[in-house]
Amino acid sequence: MIRETIVTTVSGDGVPHIAPMGATPIEGGWLLQPFRPSTTLDNFLKTRCGVVNFTDDARVFAGCVTKRKTDWPTVKADLVDSVRLETALAHHEVRVERVEEDGQRPKLHCAIVHRANNKAFPGLNRAVAAVLEGAVLVSRLHMLSREKIDQEFGYLQIAIDKTAGPHETEAWSWLTDAVLAHREQGAS
Amino acid sequence: MIRETIVTTVSGDGVPHIAPMGATPIEGGWLLQPFRPSTTLDNFLKTRCGVVNFTDDARVFAGCVTKRKTDWPTVKADLVDSVRLETALAHHEVRVERVEEDGQRPKLHCAIVHRANNKAFPGLNRAVAAVLEGAVLVSRLHMLSREKIDQEFGYLQIAIDKTAGPHETEAWSWLTDAVLAHREQGAS
Repeated sequence: MIRETIVTTVSGDGVPHIAPMGATPIEGGWLLQPFRPSTTLDNFLKTRCGVVNFTDDARVFAGCVTKRKTDWPTVKADLVDSVRLETALAHHEVRVERVEEDGQRPKLHCAIVHRANNKAFPGLNRAVAAVLEGAVLVSRLHMLSREKIDQEFGYLQIAIDKTAGPHETEAWSWLTDAVLAHREQGAS
Repeated sequence: MIRETIVTTVSGDGVPHIAPMGATPIEGGWLLQPFRPSTTLDNFLKTRCGVVNFTDDARVFAGCVTKRKTDWPTVKADLVDSVRLETALAHHEVRVERVEEDGQRPKLHCAIVHRANNKAFPGLNRAVAAVLEGAVLVSRLHMLSREKIDQEFGYLQIAIDKTAGPHETEAWSWLTDAVLAHREQGAS
């Protein structure tokens, strides 16, 4: 199973960094596989800790993937010397226990040292899921055909039209803007 | 905006009933539109109360839609004379304030009288969302072409294969079984 999470870390100087990341549950913790090179990987290797945030705020995923908004508010973590997403519904504070080297995506075996339930889950929403799928597509724009993008965005648009609130509508507009910008660069 | 929820109610004799329902947030509460006839509608009109449950357990949605498993465990609600889903991450206990009549789907204007945060949100999962979309399709099998079902199930299968845990895999199998059973009946 893979959970779609927001991982927060800090640099050696304490500068927060926010990144969407697929996280795989393992015994007592999470397997995280940040790309090399990435700020998240640098921060984890330097500080050996971070936070796996559980949020259903579609804007954070779409904002980070499109680079439209990446400075989402963070607050000090409860236990580790790092930060968590302010709006996280829940979060796990983790320490890196072991690093499995890999040229592209090193495997960080992280142990959960603190769990917090910050806010009540407001319920599933099909538009949140559509934004998440759209964000996955946008992160792979350079690998996908125009036809595939159009077809899948057309399919996802249905859930947006039927079930989105203002946050999901805004997040979706960032994704569709990113597709247009990519095409204006003549890339596909 | 529409949240995909599980609504729990009880009959006049206290028999619990569980139904997936799209719920629209309104000032201070929820607008629910159960179909006529339905046990949920009967129960709401009789008892004037119920619970809107927020869960990300894909099995509950798929189990109810396919009728494969509809007797998910419930526990007594905190305040209203009804039940809530035992595994609900969070829930709102509601009272029916006003009924707008409609031949097909009466509009129940419900006020929230109690809110509870029961368990931490475990994070988004693309397979949960795929099961939810599949459940929507299964509930409309009689209206959709074989080609549309095949195309959309094929698309959703990708997220299942990549991100599902055992619960989502089980829920997905109930949905694909329901599609096959529908076809074996020679319906499409």
